[in-house]
Amino acid sequence: MGDSQAGREVQISALPRGRLTVDQFALVTGARRALRPGEVLCRTILISLDPVNRGLMRGGSDYRGGLRAGDVMPGFAIAEVVDGGETALEPGTLVFGELGWREFAAVRADDLLPIAPRGPLSHQMSVLGLTGLTAYFGLLEVGRPEAGDTVLVSAAAGATGNVVGQLAQRHGCRVVGVTGSDAKAEVLRRTGFDAVINRRREDLRSELRRHCPDGIDVYFDSVGGKLLDACLARMAVGGRVVCCGALSEYDTDEAAVGARGVPGLVVSKRLRLEGFVVLDYRDHWPEAREQIASWIEAGELTVLEEIIDGLEQAPAAYVDLLAGGNLGKRMIRVAPDP
Amino acid sequence: MGDSQAGREVQISALPRGRLTVDQFALVTGARRALRPGEVLCRTILISLDPVNRGLMRGGSDYRGGLRAGDVMPGFAIAEVVDGGETALEPGTLVFGELGWREFAAVRADDLLPIAPRGPLSHQMSVLGLTGLTAYFGLLEVGRPEAGDTVLVSAAAGATGNVVGQLAQRHGCRVVGVTGSDAKAEVLRRTGFDAVINRRREDLRSELRRHCPDGIDVYFDSVGGKLLDACLARMAVGGRVVCCGALSEYDTDEAAVGARGVPGLVVSKRLRLEGFVVLDYRDHWPEAREQIASWIEAGELTVLEEIIDGLEQAPAAYVDLLAGGNLGKRMIRVAPDP
Repeated sequence: MGDSQAGREVQISALPRGRLTVDQFALVTGARRALRPGEVLCRTILISLDPVNRGLMRGGSDYRGGLRAGDVMPGFAIAEVVDGGETALEPGTLVFGELGWREFAAVRADDLLPIAPRGPLSHQMSVLGLTGLTAYFGLLEVGRPEAGDTVLVSAAAGATGNVVGQLAQRHGCRVVGVTGSDAKAEVLRRTGFDAVINRRREDLRSELRRHCPDGIDVYFDSVGGKLLDACLARMAVGGRVVCCGALSEYDTDEAAVGARGVPGLVVSKRLRLEGFVVLDYRDHWPEAREQIASWIEAGELTVLEEIIDGLEQAPAAYVDLLAGGNLGKRMIRVAPDP
Repeated sequence: MGDSQAGREVQISALPRGRLTVDQFALVTGARRALRPGEVLCRTILISLDPVNRGLMRGGSDYRGGLRAGDVMPGFAIAEVVDGGETALEPGTLVFGELGWREFAAVRADDLLPIAPRGPLSHQMSVLGLTGLTAYFGLLEVGRPEAGDTVLVSAAAGATGNVVGQLAQRHGCRVVGVTGSDAKAEVLRRTGFDAVINRRREDLRSELRRHCPDGIDVYFDSVGGKLLDACLARMAVGGRVVCCGALSEYDTDEAAVGARGVPGLVVSKRLRLEGFVVLDYRDHWPEAREQIASWIEAGELTVLEEIIDGLEQAPAAYVDLLAGGNLGKRMIRVAPDP
């Protein structure tokens, strides 16, 4: 408590119109304040950059409120407790929580999840964190693939997509990814994708026909928009669409266009489209983490991460992430691992 | 065989542009032809009018081919075998099959389903036929309502919708219907709907808010389009959309607009949208029919039917059906019950 609570933070200086730019952020030094009962003081180590937070700049969603100018940019982080206040959390405890883009944060202990690292701490933010768990539960519980199925993965080089593809491959599926560059496509092929489509260079519909000749059994959709339309037209009878996100709708003010195949193709092909939120599976996170960790330790899962140093880099790294610049899970290092 | 095989039939004289009109049909006398091996000659009694067939005039679907000018208008029918040919079907057997809009049809015996009437023969075409079974499997197997759920039914006065509403009510749900006239709304209220919205007179979104204050748990969608958009915005977290049809898209040449809430709201509200085709449940039809029949006999299910006399009336009755003119299952009587 005290001096250490003051620290740098990234605020949203203005809500964006159209695409987000770095001009909508401001790096400022936060005000000090005393810990309230139940709160602890945390020192941020790693911040997670998540495209979905962009949506909060347009009015929020059903599961959290919208953002306003002057707010600290929200984001999950891994941190170390530096002052446990009157709570049971000891200084030095590593925790995960929604701390925002700041060096220090006073947070209710109840809102923090203590973590026990297994391997590099950063894995807690990628394959063993929310994006890895999203891939795990979305693919296995919502998509329910069977061996031999063709699984199509959108944003395949993204934090979630690359794990979905690797898990599907482990599961005995044929895996086709969609990504935005040849370099990423090459990396994905090396992690086990059977085919990768570069959506910026290739004609989506003809490539989907070529790589999914018997249709798509499971489409893991983090994107929505035109790719969803193209996939709906290519789904196999009885196919499942795992609705994980709507990347194509986040970084814009424009209203969503709407999925053309709904409900027409959904009926004729007996499709199931199902949305999910990984927080709903909280009770099953431990066993999923155990599974994923064991695959990593056996060398059966490649971990793709980008760790960018410095809180001041967060705005540019985030704007680039929204444009699809990342390969794997992108995070910001604010302090070294303890 | 022989003379009796010639009879009147309704052909599609031209594929429609825009809305279907009676001018696109022609009543002609069909050509005679001898029965082929495996075929029987049927005399049509009742023809089912189904909006979904309109879609076949624009190129077909995944589960059947498109129509061309000169084709007999397709349609399911109940008929009596008048010549069993060399098959095991005895003359006098009542059968159900896709005979088309004609008085006599030579059909493969394998494509016919012998029926054992229970109550009026017309029930085999309505509550005990495909529309009743569609309501049964769509609501119970796809929508999986729980007692206390709010169930919203589109095209609630339609052949399927009115049964969905009554079954949901039996199931302990609060049932809200959407229909196109005050007269229909009144009939639906009398069959047990808790509330009915007249979509032509009332503001959909505000009425949905009023009648579904805690959101929609199950939306039985036979319509798509704007009603689907409005319902997606009003779904409860974890809600299910039973994708049964796309009435709003059948009687037009225009491309579907697309469902705006897909995938955005599907993710944030963890919705499930699932399409189905009643033919896939064929193995379970007998027990469903038994259930429905027992409810009718106990006076717990109101049967809504419109039986219009004369094959020559079929085109006008069908055009009006597409405009939402029917109350319950509409069919054409071609011959008296045997």
